[in-house]
Amino acid sequence: MAGKEMAKPLLANENESHHYDPQKIAVGILGSGDFARSLATRLKNSGYSVIVGSRHPKSTAHLFSNVAEVTNQRDAIERVNVIFIALYREHYSTLSELRDVLTGKILVDVSNNIRINEYEESNAEYLAFLFPESTVVKGFNVVSAWALQSGGRDGNKQVMICSDSQKARSTVADMARNMGFVPMDMGSLSSAHEIENLPLCLFPSWKIPILLSLGLFVFFYIYNFIRGVIHPFTTKGQNNFYRIPIEIVNVTLPCVAFELLAFVYLAGILAAFLQLHNGTKYKRFPHWLDQWLQQRKQLGLLSFFFGALHAVYSLCLPMRRSARYKLLNEAFKQVEAGNENAWVEEEVWRMEIYVSFGILALGILSLIAVTSLPSVAGSLNWREFSFIQSRLGYTALVFSTLHTLTYGWEKAFDPTQYRFYTPPTFAVALVMPIIVLLGKVYLYLPCVNRKLTRIRRGWERNHIVRFHEPDNSNQFNQDNTSRL
Amino acid sequence: MAGKEMAKPLLANENESHHYDPQKIAVGILGSGDFARSLATRLKNSGYSVIVGSRHPKSTAHLFSNVAEVTNQRDAIERVNVIFIALYREHYSTLSELRDVLTGKILVDVSNNIRINEYEESNAEYLAFLFPESTVVKGFNVVSAWALQSGGRDGNKQVMICSDSQKARSTVADMARNMGFVPMDMGSLSSAHEIENLPLCLFPSWKIPILLSLGLFVFFYIYNFIRGVIHPFTTKGQNNFYRIPIEIVNVTLPCVAFELLAFVYLAGILAAFLQLHNGTKYKRFPHWLDQWLQQRKQLGLLSFFFGALHAVYSLCLPMRRSARYKLLNEAFKQVEAGNENAWVEEEVWRMEIYVSFGILALGILSLIAVTSLPSVAGSLNWREFSFIQSRLGYTALVFSTLHTLTYGWEKAFDPTQYRFYTPPTFAVALVMPIIVLLGKVYLYLPCVNRKLTRIRRGWERNHIVRFHEPDNSNQFNQDNTSRL
Amino acid sequence: MAGKEMAKPLLANENESHHYDPQKIAVGILGSGDFARSLATRLKNSGYSVIVGSRHPKSTAHLFSNVAEVTNQRDAIERVNVIFIALYREHYSTLSELRDVLTGKILVDVSNNIRINEYEESNAEYLAFLFPESTVVKGFNVVSAWALQSGGRDGNKQVMICSDSQKARSTVADMARNMGFVPMDMGSLSSAHEIENLPLCLFPSWKIPILLSLGLFVFFYIYNFIRGVIHPFTTKGQNNFYRIPIEIVNVTLPCVAFELLAFVYLAGILAAFLQLHNGTKYKRFPHWLDQWLQQRKQLGLLSFFFGALHAVYSLCLPMRRSARYKLLNEAFKQVEAGNENAWVEEEVWRMEIYVSFGILALGILSLIAVTSLPSVAGSLNWREFSFIQSRLGYTALVFSTLHTLTYGWEKAFDPTQYRFYTPPTFAVALVMPIIVLLGKVYLYLPCVNRKLTRIRRGWERNHIVRFHEPDNSNQFNQDNTSRL
Repeated sequence: MAGKEMAKPLLANENESHHYDPQKIAVGILGSGDFARSLATRLKNSGYSVIVGSRHPKSTAHLFSNVAEVTNQRDAIERVNVIFIALYREHYSTLSELRDVLTGKILVDVSNNIRINEYEESNAEYLAFLFPESTVVKGFNVVSAWALQSGGRDGNKQVMICSDSQKARSTVADMARNMGFVPMDMGSLSSAHEIENLPLCLFPSWKIPILLSLGLFVFFYIYNFIRGVIHPFTTKGQNNFYRIPIEIVNVTLPCVAFELLAFVYLAGILAAFLQLHNGTKYKRFPHWLDQWLQQRKQLGLLSFFFGALHAVYSLCLPMRRSARYKLLNEAFKQVEAGNENAWVEEEVWRMEIYVSFGILALGILSLIAVTSLPSVAGSLNWREFSFIQSRLGYTALVFSTLHTLTYGWEKAFDPTQYRFYTPPTFAVALVMPIIVLLGKVYLYLPCVNRKLTRIRRGWERNHIVRFHEPDNSNQFNQDNTSRL
Repeated sequence: MAGKEMAKPLLANENESHHYDPQKIAVGILGSGDFARSLATRLKNSGYSVIVGSRHPKSTAHLFSNVAEVTNQRDAIERVNVIFIALYREHYSTLSELRDVLTGKILVDVSNNIRINEYEESNAEYLAFLFPESTVVKGFNVVSAWALQSGGRDGNKQVMICSDSQKARSTVADMARNMGFVPMDMGSLSSAHEIENLPLCLFPSWKIPILLSLGLFVFFYIYNFIRGVIHPFTTKGQNNFYRIPIEIVNVTLPCVAFELLAFVYLAGILAAFLQLHNGTKYKRFPHWLDQWLQQRKQLGLLSFFFGALHAVYSLCLPMRRSARYKLLNEAFKQVEAGNENAWVEEEVWRMEIYVSFGILALGILSLIAVTSLPSVAGSLNWREFSFIQSRLGYTALVFSTLHTLTYGWEKAFDPTQYRFYTPPTFAVALVMPIIVLLGKVYLYLPCVNRKLTRIRRGWERNHIVRFHEPDNSNQFNQDNTSRL
Repeated sequence: MAGKEMAKPLLANENESHHYDPQKIAVGILGSGDFARSLATRLKNSGYSVIVGSRHPKSTAHLFSNVAEVTNQRDAIERVNVIFIALYREHYSTLSELRDVLTGKILVDVSNNIRINEYEESNAEYLAFLFPESTVVKGFNVVSAWALQSGGRDGNKQVMICSDSQKARSTVADMARNMGFVPMDMGSLSSAHEIENLPLCLFPSWKIPILLSLGLFVFFYIYNFIRGVIHPFTTKGQNNFYRIPIEIVNVTLPCVAFELLAFVYLAGILAAFLQLHNGTKYKRFPHWLDQWLQQRKQLGLLSFFFGALHAVYSLCLPMRRSARYKLLNEAFKQVEAGNENAWVEEEVWRMEIYVSFGILALGILSLIAVTSLPSVAGSLNWREFSFIQSRLGYTALVFSTLHTLTYGWEKAFDPTQYRFYTPPTFAVALVMPIIVLLGKVYLYLPCVNRKLTRIRRGWERNHIVRFHEPDNSNQFNQDNTSRL
């Protein structure tokens, strides 16, 4: 019977390959803190049997009831092959009396430090130095006690692992996988320093974009403050200081959002020009450009954040007392003047149009922001991703430019707008985006575009064409089209 | 040649370890409903060959064309080792005539009930009772037919598995993994009851936070209704009933949002005080506090939801007819009175400032809400997560407090605001947040902070210091800092 | 000692099962483009040793420094068993001189095309045709070079794999799993065509919903333009053209949102009626209905998008110059007329109520939209998901209907509203949603509901009841309740 034969391998699997059943494997833990306890629970739930080694097994046992067997340290170490060292670095040396039983065992260093680069030598390397006869593996430090408890349902599931022994690395990687994490092999133990710094980083990829945003904000705020508060005060004695909290902020926010959006796409334009200039794509970009290209997502999200704040501030304008009082005073004046109709057709059209463009720009930016969420981005193929980030992004930039141009209308040609000889803010804000859009138009010229496409498919000006080793050009294109 | 030697293990893998190739394994399914069909498709796509056992193989075969072989039940069972029982509990007993061939097989119970605790005994335990010679595994009930079809691209990928046989558990866990799910080992078959209840739960962790929000909403709504509608009606005969749908709701929403945000951080404050009082962190918190700490995320998200609704309601205020009519009447009065300037500098400043604080508070809350999305939280390390949830959260609380204080301005000292002897709503709403902020300030006092840090690193007042078994204090800190 | 015995299996695992340690496996890559380099890095990080075959090993070596050994093509192929062919299809034929060493090897075709259906025959099948003695596997083409570099932290992790050899398929699937991807077995090499088209698709499931939205938008825009601009212009000579950018858009958006929401639920209603009519659920729905049911999520999200835009447009209304001028003119008229009180109680109530309903409808839709995010949906069980998508969705539909009805108030009975004999827009928009709601009410009638429930549990009118093979009815219900 064919069916019975088909079933055989599964039976074989069950009878012979015990070593794949995690149930059979006993794992040790030294330590009884929160991390040790969460780790024990997770290991047990993943099918391991856990033996905790403690100096005071009796007083510690209740912390692990129903989860792990608690015994003295020597006994625990003797009975297992893999031991998690859930202790502080300062206490590693207290284990020296156990050196004989630790020999040949795999020690998993899960420790973290409090500051970046707290010690010159990583904790894991220090442990390896103390116990040269044991095999030290660094891992699980990026996981919090809470992530262990919650079963990895939320939270980062990546576990960086490194060790000088491939075998040990692979054993611990298997355990991580069984526990529901995604192990990342980081090579030899010398990576431990980097791995230990990982959980201490605070948004490293956001640092420059945030500083840039703050810089732009301060610059435009001061610029607008001088033009909108100081100038009327010094020239006409007008008290406009009430504009400080909202109105000046609200003319500053769109400038920051607009510049940041231009910065997103400027990086791609510069990269393309460099490739055209070098005549190859195999020459690496300068470091600053590489970094810039990688931080376009952050720049784009900040641009959206400032744009959304601008929208909220703008929507708040008519609800303010100041708007109400101004309107009442205007009504009073109109009645006094006997002016039946206040309507100014040009002003009406200007505002209807620039508000429209603003809404459309923000609407598109919000779509891009949503597709930047990891889980949404993960459900797109790269053509879709690139369409959203590049095409829609440029559309948003064009709409923002039109929003700014219609907002400005004729002001750029009105001498009274050049207060203290400074050009109107919107004109200053337009410079960078216009450069980006002109650059993009230039790259779309057929002759330039053809050359660029050829370069991106691997062609090189000064080389024998390596005709049979080009790259996957589509996939490359995605890498260089702008991503938010 | 070294290269050839390196390649050997892979060859070995291919020739010898047939039992790891899922292709070879045949799996049985009894049942022909949607779940059975989706399961068959998924198994087939994951590389298994599927044999469906049916009473009416001929009329059922078309349902599984290109996916599975359909045969009679006895034949199907004989040919496989693992059989999915995709039947209702009520029909389990109809399988009794097949007891002889079921002996020694693994039966996977995938059934669900319609109500929580519908039967005293879980379906899986009932199946095990009926077929004591078979090995019953509970699993896959948390997965819907639709999730099976869609290849687990979206949807919850966790599959809870339990059985009294470790071997069977591990076999089914491997199958789940091959099908793209994340198996969770839940131990012995006695967990089946809990696993069967899982898919019937309706937001268990949201229940208390939602009830609390509703309670707060009702309280503040009535309070505001009495002060804003009943009081002017009874004392001055004013008809303010038009305020019921929007204005009264809009003064109620921020109170609810504000209290909920305070509740988020109150839990952490209480936990810290308890730890200071106990002099140890090893004493478990009372159950209510534990639960409260675990529901801070829900409380925070509800706070954001109510805050965002408050913003939308506020932005709608000036577009209403009522606002328009009031403004027109005021303009009329101003003209009648010949009052050229309606401007009240203090009122202008008050509103510009409190609107600013409100926007900032909501902006920060929206950042926290975004990082609460599982996929975003998953891309943060715990230092970043803790920074966002704790530091930014307290900043939002401070801004909300300032928003409320500047909104209130001098009203708290104005006797006419004490309608029916009740204090103004904003004053009532301020009590809890102010307590939280004072508590936080107290915990930041150097002497208190030092003691707390020591306790959280594992120090105990009444114990020999267990000096070499402390916890991973950073990771602990994350657990106790407030999370939204 | 029992403990030592428990540890044995792990030791056994380590000593005997070398072939599970990816470290041991050498993998080859032909090609030196971006994809080849990213692939090499990822393979190395996942524990493989990588050998790159190049025609110009010397000039290529620097591209792979620290990542892979670069040698000539023949040597690379000889030393490995699995070779990734990271070349363009046009260059496959240049490998013909290596046919002897390629014999018996697994060739992984990772290539993509530039257009859908660019070649009649898939690249992988073409490769298999060129090298009939090798085993070709299609895979990894859906992954971008960038996703490979970033370690799959974001981005789609599914890797579709197909091959005529089960063994090769399973070998490559294991590699994908080790690299952190989720392999999907797509069967024989004939699926390669489909797999190669996958990354070139541009939102296939959004196409019809977007076209439908655009169609509705154009229809309602023209309808509103004729009623709101052309009619007053031709009949009274009023110049209302300023309404084109905002006001006409703003009355069009809610109609589109409203119809789309009705379309979401109409599909489920039709499906239920069909099941009632057929007397069974085993008869397949017509193709168009199947597709419609599958695109409810897209329709719902578009409905939310248009609804949110409507909200933003509405909030912008009072800030416009046109609103300001109209208010000033009205104030002027009121003063002229000596009318002290402009208040119209009915108008006030109408607006307070319809604004409230609008906010509530949008608030609920935003909750549904958030739970449509893959990572949020993934954390819900299907009862929660179905509650949100079906119950909350119908609540949103009811609130939208009430919003529209209170907005319309008595206009439907006012003859002056029938401009050019057309009914008011809101009345047109109401038709479809009212039909859906009536259909839903009908399905809730006890007698109908009972019959439908029976059908969905597997009962059939014209058949012997297959009493022991019903489906998992809960899970089915989820499939047929409306999902956004």
